Amino acid sequence: METRSKSYTYRMTVRWTGERKGAATCEGKSGIEVATPPEFKGHPGIWSPEDLFVAAVNSCVMTTFLAYAERAGLGFTAYASEAEGKLELVDGGFRFTEIFVRPRLVLASADDRQKAAEVLARAEANCLISSSITAKVHLEAQIS
Amino acid sequence: METRSKSYTYRMTVRWTGERKGAATCEGKSGIEVATPPEFKGHPGIWSPEDLFVAAVNSCVMTTFLAYAERAGLGFTAYASEAEGKLELVDGGFRFTEIFVRPRLVLASADDRQKAAEVLARAEANCLISSSITAKVHLEAQIS
Repeated sequence: METRSKSYTYRMTVRWTGERKGAATCEGKSGIEVATPPEFKGHPGIWSPEDLFVAAVNSCVMTTFLAYAERAGLGFTAYASEAEGKLELVDGGFRFTEIFVRPRLVLASADDRQKAAEVLARAEANCLISSSITAKVHLEAQIS
Repeated sequence: METRSKSYTYRMTVRWTGERKGAATCEGKSGIEVATPPEFKGHPGIWSPEDLFVAAVNSCVMTTFLAYAERAGLGFTAYASEAEGKLELVDGGFRFTEIFVRPRLVLASADDRQKAAEVLARAEANCLISSSITAKVHLEAQIS
């Protein structure tokens, strides 16, 4: 095992561009337009903070899976995951209460089904975004 | 006050595109390339799950502020906010422990300084992403 630093810092900027819209930038990366979603009097067709939150969870489960699968020698040909975040009114304020992560994984060998299920479960359990949120994350994998 | 539904659902998909990269999509919105960051053996120059997480918090504070400022009749000409998320090893696992949100707000009138500070503080306190995470969010506003 390598020695890893115990702390990392992530920086990004958001700048208001008018109405209920903004430009999200991260040094050296393409910009993302962000906006309040329509249901909170915002704009359609633009990533909202809520979308980005669900994307952070879903993509973290995937990248954690990619690392674990490599380490476990698990061969697969496709991974696509739909995630669904549920925002609910709790004690007078909205918060995400549940996130459903539904990876569809296509294995190179049918013999690896059990191993794949284990690797996926470990990836969700150790996903650092899942560990940083109060919502319950439900993993509903489909392995073929 | 209008009556609002007590629950909203946010859906998005991430699809593995090779190496430690993926394509994040949300219906009707532009795609975002995502990847494991370099410090976890990934790729530079691509939004990571960690970046998206910090972006969700920072953009939610902004959009909440936009709504509250409108309601409070607060005039401003610019809002730009850098956010910094600290990822630390806690009990053997990484998680975000602190997020610093640093809005720089330019007011239309210098008389509104106090009101602006209050509106910003309320926006952070009621930001639904802040309410959905375990990290402590620190608001460090600069009002001019």
